[in-house]
Amino acid sequence: MRWRLDIAYDGTGFSGWAAQPGRRTVQGELEDWLPKVLRLGAPVSLVCAGRTDAGVHARGQVAHVDLPDQTIGDDGRTLNRRLDRALPHDLVVRRISAAPPGFDARFSAVWRRYVYRLSDASVPPDPLRRHDVARIGELIDVNVVNAGAPALLGLREFAAFCRQHQGASTIRTLLDLHAERRPDMIEITVRADAFCHSMVRSLVGALVAVGSGRRNLDWLAELARLRVRDSRVQVVPPHGLTLEEVGYPPDDQLAVRAEEARNRRVEPAMATADD
Amino acid sequence: MRWRLDIAYDGTGFSGWAAQPGRRTVQGELEDWLPKVLRLGAPVSLVCAGRTDAGVHARGQVAHVDLPDQTIGDDGRTLNRRLDRALPHDLVVRRISAAPPGFDARFSAVWRRYVYRLSDASVPPDPLRRHDVARIGELIDVNVVNAGAPALLGLREFAAFCRQHQGASTIRTLLDLHAERRPDMIEITVRADAFCHSMVRSLVGALVAVGSGRRNLDWLAELARLRVRDSRVQVVPPHGLTLEEVGYPPDDQLAVRAEEARNRRVEPAMATADD
Repeated sequence: MRWRLDIAYDGTGFSGWAAQPGRRTVQGELEDWLPKVLRLGAPVSLVCAGRTDAGVHARGQVAHVDLPDQTIGDDGRTLNRRLDRALPHDLVVRRISAAPPGFDARFSAVWRRYVYRLSDASVPPDPLRRHDVARIGELIDVNVVNAGAPALLGLREFAAFCRQHQGASTIRTLLDLHAERRPDMIEITVRADAFCHSMVRSLVGALVAVGSGRRNLDWLAELARLRVRDSRVQVVPPHGLTLEEVGYPPDDQLAVRAEEARNRRVEPAMATADD
Repeated sequence: MRWRLDIAYDGTGFSGWAAQPGRRTVQGELEDWLPKVLRLGAPVSLVCAGRTDAGVHARGQVAHVDLPDQTIGDDGRTLNRRLDRALPHDLVVRRISAAPPGFDARFSAVWRRYVYRLSDASVPPDPLRRHDVARIGELIDVNVVNAGAPALLGLREFAAFCRQHQGASTIRTLLDLHAERRPDMIEITVRADAFCHSMVRSLVGALVAVGSGRRNLDWLAELARLRVRDSRVQVVPPHGLTLEEVGYPPDDQLAVRAEEARNRRVEPAMATADD
């Protein structure tokens, strides 16, 4: 029986999502606590929608886990309450629910939405948000960012923004890229079908370079045409980044979508590593 | 020459505003750094609008400091930049400006606005906000809170909600008290001319008791008539509380207002200790 977990975490104290020996990770923490709380004899294995890097946060992470039938007696509420008491306060399982047939947290997903938060030189930083809002010493013109962003939208090659992995495709569909100035910060939204490694933070780094006037719109358009990683693109720090939401199709399309995505990007596994 | 400082801090790492030997406090940190950054031979002394307790945060704290003429050559911007580089990241001086004549950060203030943030049982807590949003295990009915709150408004005796200090008045004017449910939390706004010790967190504790159904509206109305501290009023934890804003009258009324307030509550000094 497959269960869906909706998860939030403060990435500050984690070496990212993916389990690594000797390091505190979100996957490691959950795979450690779930068998204990459920009193299972065997280990469990979680699959998530967005494998966040060290220091990156999540409010809308989604994972699935397969458990023997009857392990969870009710709709997941009891386990949710017990996990809530067990887990450290920087990791919250927001909801546990029975997964619909064909659901795969990673391969059924149709998009991932990230928000990068930063305070620029125009506003004093909020000390209460210093864990999830990055400080940028420059002044950012949000209108210039939004003038440049559309050049990167759509199905295209994102090699300039991706750490290369042997044989892995860096073609993705960027669905949304825009900046908004809030009273105390700037929020840059990045939504795509999937992301290759370091892609979100490289896109934001390029937009910040343009918004601050260090680079111009032609440079951004040039990046969009490159077929290799470009060292002029700076990767912004991880703590400004939060995985906010993962999109899934209607239940009757979950299995088809998962099959498609699996065929397209099953090898190597790291090809879809997400920021 | 008097300067006004607009200050924000994450109260987590501070034993409150007021300087105490051997403890890290906001006042202590600022009185330590200001002479260093300004290369002054003599110590400086800060006066603030709201002496927050240990663990309480601020986004809108206001303080004043008197410095020898010519200490600050410009409009305060250079000092602001240098302080920004020197101060630890949980303490931010948002602005330094020349104080208008008659300005006193404490006695000229006409109101202090605090917001208490909590997540109740209806929403999973946001781990990224666990430092400034308190978790309450119960379900809070915001409509019930807002039905009870008006009974406490106006000029009245707040003895039931205040820690007693010998000879100090506990009469205050409560200007605003209401709750709003946001997507991820409940915000309770408390605004008054001034607060006696523990008053904000006691008011919130009483409202939470009513909103959760543990107490009823009659009990709240009864508290409003008491002339002594009531042990049934629970003080909620400090980390949900943030001093958001301090109100001052127009510049030409600053001195008059300060004179009035000073006469009314100059003794003992602790009488106006604010949460």
